[in-house]
Amino acid sequence: MRVLDGETLSPPPIWLMRQAGRYLPEYKETRAKAGSFLELCYSPDHAVEVTLQPIRRYNFDAAILFSDILVIPDAMRRNVRFTEGHGPEMDPIDEAGILRLDGMGVVDYLEPVFETVRRLRAELPEETTLLGFCGAPWTVATYMIAGHGTPDQAPARLFAYKHPKAFERLLMLLADVSADYLVRQIDAGADAVQIFDSWAGVLGEKEFEAFAVRPVARMISSVKARRPQARIIAFAKGAGYLLKTYRQKTGADAIGLDWSVPLGFAAELQKEGPVQGNLDPMRLVAGGKALEEGIDDILAHLGSGPLIFNLGHGITPQADPENVHLLVERVRRSGN
Amino acid sequence: MRVLDGETLSPPPIWLMRQAGRYLPEYKETRAKAGSFLELCYSPDHAVEVTLQPIRRYNFDAAILFSDILVIPDAMRRNVRFTEGHGPEMDPIDEAGILRLDGMGVVDYLEPVFETVRRLRAELPEETTLLGFCGAPWTVATYMIAGHGTPDQAPARLFAYKHPKAFERLLMLLADVSADYLVRQIDAGADAVQIFDSWAGVLGEKEFEAFAVRPVARMISSVKARRPQARIIAFAKGAGYLLKTYRQKTGADAIGLDWSVPLGFAAELQKEGPVQGNLDPMRLVAGGKALEEGIDDILAHLGSGPLIFNLGHGITPQADPENVHLLVERVRRSGN
Repeated sequence: MRVLDGETLSPPPIWLMRQAGRYLPEYKETRAKAGSFLELCYSPDHAVEVTLQPIRRYNFDAAILFSDILVIPDAMRRNVRFTEGHGPEMDPIDEAGILRLDGMGVVDYLEPVFETVRRLRAELPEETTLLGFCGAPWTVATYMIAGHGTPDQAPARLFAYKHPKAFERLLMLLADVSADYLVRQIDAGADAVQIFDSWAGVLGEKEFEAFAVRPVARMISSVKARRPQARIIAFAKGAGYLLKTYRQKTGADAIGLDWSVPLGFAAELQKEGPVQGNLDPMRLVAGGKALEEGIDDILAHLGSGPLIFNLGHGITPQADPENVHLLVERVRRSGN
Repeated sequence: MRVLDGETLSPPPIWLMRQAGRYLPEYKETRAKAGSFLELCYSPDHAVEVTLQPIRRYNFDAAILFSDILVIPDAMRRNVRFTEGHGPEMDPIDEAGILRLDGMGVVDYLEPVFETVRRLRAELPEETTLLGFCGAPWTVATYMIAGHGTPDQAPARLFAYKHPKAFERLLMLLADVSADYLVRQIDAGADAVQIFDSWAGVLGEKEFEAFAVRPVARMISSVKARRPQARIIAFAKGAGYLLKTYRQKTGADAIGLDWSVPLGFAAELQKEGPVQGNLDPMRLVAGGKALEEGIDDILAHLGSGPLIFNLGHGITPQADPENVHLLVERVRRSGN
């Protein structure tokens, strides 16, 4: 929280995207008990348990609510399915479907998530930040249009070109529902929230402005107008050069950096405010020198400014839990 | 060719990546006759025919040899297969396999490709540039390691971290074989060549330098030392901000820009030399205003410098051939 307010801490705080996940045997155990993946997300008992597991093991500085960005379309009754071995799927939506869509009852449907947040805030040590999150409108919309993930989300890009008004309606509806969702997470006890725009990198410049910047700016101003204490991290994966003005235009307190963001450029971005990232998750899998060099490089370039140490994308199932220990220790040993 | 030498032409010349492809009914007809996809690549009769088809229809300023970047691993006997509905597949290679690999006979195996180039140069109008091409070592290596495409080529990133020496050997071997391959294409009649680094965007900064910049620089200096007249376009898809120094470091005459490259940044890059790109292929599918605005934007930002008009990635099967006509006409009407 202090870094989100612009302070430089040494060592920097650390958490990992998808830190509650399949690389942990205890996660797999709980996952097996929970039924479907969405049942895991909607069961406060199980969701609290898996959120806490990596905190117990590694004492990360932040816990992130266990959930998924696609609970929003699920709450919109788009029939979201997570099938083993497939990516997520849902009923694809068309122009008429978007015109019929409304935000009524969507956030209330997600009450189990708020219950999870409440219990987490009660169970977590006071010094551990609790992060809520949601998907950015563009990223959520790409799945809603295609009905599944695709290599470069061409179906949503095409839909946006062909049906600009319907697409704008979808983005604005998602922005408003998501802002309400974040406010409710904050009210339930989330100290800060992260907005994941995992597919920002497939957009041209104008579309980045219209589909990534504008809806997220709308969300952030809506959340901050109602909850001025809210701290918000925005993560636009693959946005690269366009990150230059992303913080200023969206009003995010901190920006997340994927592993492809050059550290010199990251240091420029850090002059304007806190950054989070950006170790290649494959360095964590590789371990050894590749891991050590990756950590040291980030600390050398970004350690003397406001930094939240993190990966540049979610941790992968094949990561060795022991390497996560080594990572946390090395970052913590770096402090003055 | 004049733009590759730094001239500004109005209207700019135009060709489209993957212009010989499934959006054309005549391509599908030839494809059906050819047997497997690789048989199409290795049959000079069929490969010449499909290369010429889009020239006949649209009179593009350049024809690009019909082939595939994976003919190199195929020539290395990695058992490359193109199966309908799947992406390309091949036998994945490991550390020991890389140590056993050598470049002997690889380029000679591709003699049918050179025959295609010779026939094309004889059949094409003199004013139509004939482009040869190959994959960049990093991109070809990602398929060789994983045995197939993956969302962010994590297997190759991981392999490179774990086995840096073997990976370096693979890249250098691919660079040398590919340089020889390009020289032979030039000797057979290619006026210029393009190097496709389709997976450059998944690399961190240091890896971009080591895996994308260095091998391509090695290729280009090797080709230019032997064929000083060679003109080379390098296309590092997704490289974003790192394109800043890519031309200078690789020695490419022109750099290709994917559709995510902001046009203001593209104009900066153009100050250092010719650029090629970068219309979103989905604008071509959408047609109408989305297509017109996309074309006009590129011309407004890049039309007064050395520009080769192109898409920001390959044309997709669902593009309407009529929209391609509209694109070519609009670009040509833009001229003084």
